[in-house]
Amino acid sequence: MSFHYLEQIRQTNPLIHCITNYVAANFTANGLLAIGASPLMSANVAEVAEIQQFAKGLLLNIGTPNGPENIEAMILAGKAANQVGIPVVLDPVGSGATSYRRQVVEKLLSEVKFALIRGNAGEIAPLAQIQWRSKGVDAGAGEADLAEVAKQVAQQYHCIVAISGETDFVSDGQRVAKAQNGTPLFPKITGSGCLLGAVCAAFLSVAPASAYFDTVVEATMVYAVAGELAARTLNSTQTGTFAVKFLDQLAEINMTSAEQQGRVIYA
Amino acid sequence: MSFHYLEQIRQTNPLIHCITNYVAANFTANGLLAIGASPLMSANVAEVAEIQQFAKGLLLNIGTPNGPENIEAMILAGKAANQVGIPVVLDPVGSGATSYRRQVVEKLLSEVKFALIRGNAGEIAPLAQIQWRSKGVDAGAGEADLAEVAKQVAQQYHCIVAISGETDFVSDGQRVAKAQNGTPLFPKITGSGCLLGAVCAAFLSVAPASAYFDTVVEATMVYAVAGELAARTLNSTQTGTFAVKFLDQLAEINMTSAEQQGRVIYA
Amino acid sequence: MSFHYLEQIRQTNPLIHCITNYVAANFTANGLLAIGASPLMSANVAEVAEIQQFAKGLLLNIGTPNGPENIEAMILAGKAANQVGIPVVLDPVGSGATSYRRQVVEKLLSEVKFALIRGNAGEIAPLAQIQWRSKGVDAGAGEADLAEVAKQVAQQYHCIVAISGETDFVSDGQRVAKAQNGTPLFPKITGSGCLLGAVCAAFLSVAPASAYFDTVVEATMVYAVAGELAARTLNSTQTGTFAVKFLDQLAEINMTSAEQQGRVIYA
Repeated sequence: MSFHYLEQIRQTNPLIHCITNYVAANFTANGLLAIGASPLMSANVAEVAEIQQFAKGLLLNIGTPNGPENIEAMILAGKAANQVGIPVVLDPVGSGATSYRRQVVEKLLSEVKFALIRGNAGEIAPLAQIQWRSKGVDAGAGEADLAEVAKQVAQQYHCIVAISGETDFVSDGQRVAKAQNGTPLFPKITGSGCLLGAVCAAFLSVAPASAYFDTVVEATMVYAVAGELAARTLNSTQTGTFAVKFLDQLAEINMTSAEQQGRVIYA
Repeated sequence: MSFHYLEQIRQTNPLIHCITNYVAANFTANGLLAIGASPLMSANVAEVAEIQQFAKGLLLNIGTPNGPENIEAMILAGKAANQVGIPVVLDPVGSGATSYRRQVVEKLLSEVKFALIRGNAGEIAPLAQIQWRSKGVDAGAGEADLAEVAKQVAQQYHCIVAISGETDFVSDGQRVAKAQNGTPLFPKITGSGCLLGAVCAAFLSVAPASAYFDTVVEATMVYAVAGELAARTLNSTQTGTFAVKFLDQLAEINMTSAEQQGRVIYA
Repeated sequence: MSFHYLEQIRQTNPLIHCITNYVAANFTANGLLAIGASPLMSANVAEVAEIQQFAKGLLLNIGTPNGPENIEAMILAGKAANQVGIPVVLDPVGSGATSYRRQVVEKLLSEVKFALIRGNAGEIAPLAQIQWRSKGVDAGAGEADLAEVAKQVAQQYHCIVAISGETDFVSDGQRVAKAQNGTPLFPKITGSGCLLGAVCAAFLSVAPASAYFDTVVEATMVYAVAGELAARTLNSTQTGTFAVKFLDQLAEINMTSAEQQGRVIYA
């Protein structure tokens, strides 16, 4: 691991267009600013295609799907992003929870080419028709081998897949990286997964397509280490303080501390 | 008071579906996570009925009513929740302010059976045709006997009613509890009322219908004591810090501290 | 400078109606509460006109334009506000970025009379057909004399214009004030510009029309000094903590500290 894409983001401040949910929108924008990127939020069909002309990366997050027009905006933006060749990230929030969300995800996957699909186990497992007891937008629990799940979904959709959790699994369909940093405080704040999807879009936006696997591993590590550092002096109930200190750490973290603390195993 | 529903939430992490406003959505989700519940936000007519199949409680908050489809989603969700028997909370934000919101509240009250209506005096008084000088979404001022107002509205709609303010009033139409904890910092942060509505939904979701009055009193107390504890070391202008420390306290508070600090009088 | 409008806000708690974006809505509401105003968020066409009957100021922020109905709500609210004579603020977020936003701004400027247009250089320069390399919703960079730009746009639209940045420029078309307080942390948190627009609406709401220039200079100064004070003990990466401490400072700041720290030059 070399962690040089982080420095690239800091130097070039890539503009990341997010079509995301209103719950995590503020946290996502502040997190992108902290990491060094420049967020733009819009779900308006009248402008989302034009935005891809100057955006460097696109996030499609279905956390609060506000009706047909919202999904139409995602498809318009995704197709335009594909045309200009910028990376697109899918965050299938809660797709294990309702049949509507499953349909939305299928639709998006059939219309848009993604560089990365990022979600928790309950959101990713169903993409490979694997059983998982998901719980709303939370991860839930299951028995499947998540390294295998990540690999399988990556093969099926020809993209990188990242499964977030206590251990993060990243696969390009052949390789699998397990990242073991993090903190139990992550699932105690809303939008920690959503922001990771946006941060991955920022990392992908400064990497060549041939390095997408490496850069997602780097993004996952940097993010988890920042969480670990933010949690260091906190007890397990300081959830409000953690969200604040985590933004500080995303702005503070550098290659050296990420490399020192990062624990990645390649399977 | 025994405060055992708090422990129930922590042990079972009930999923609470919120159709709420975009101003308070993030704070509400973080507050529900802090108290031990699992939030799911969606106002999409295509999935809100299905969500009631696995949700344990439902919050309908009209803080930013985004047009007819938003209200339709509330009614669909509310009816489905009624059918499966999970508790539904109404937060009639700003209903004293505009005739549109009054109509929305009337519509919701006629279509959905609520376990609890929670609001400030300016939002609850009009439900019993009582005069109150409300001010937008803030409480305003009036002369009515709020214990009597709570009782009257509870009788009229056959549910629990909670009026939030310096003193909180909870009634089931017969009994009235006055809870006297809290802090002047509460009205200085946005969404403190909205989050209380969501927290009440979490408490109701782990209680039998016969204990709805007690559990709303407990929720109100726990919430107000957490605010008191968060404000202890702060001065009256630290509004930003208060919002953060309050989330910490919601995650930290336990039965013992709530019982020690709680001041409830039954009228 | 006398900074007496700040005290007016604290004494009268004016209700400020905001039609604003969902990214900054929570931060805007908390910031308005901190400064002493009373926020009301709604973009519903069924009530936005009625709200002007009791609102003291109106903010129209196009940060996340959610389709035709959102713009219609802005026009309805703006016209009603003009009729009752309360000040209206336009925040043309990202108007340098897409042709759709340029059209929305033109439409709003042709239908509504504004007391103030507030934006960064990339958003204001295009209003006077001046070239500027904007970057999404961020300021970007250009060569124009911003004092001249502010003056020209103010003359064209017969209102106050404020250009936010490292130096803030305020003009009424004749006078120009340069305010030189602030902190590099401002552009590192999302919504710092959006909240300034809302705070300006609060200041305008307690001032006579003849004092609109002075009160916007005061608002700009108070805001920038509060930022400076909040950043005093922080390093440049504490972006999360800054957002929290800035709200504290908005609630804390008084005439004395603002006058002592304020650096305004009249050109």
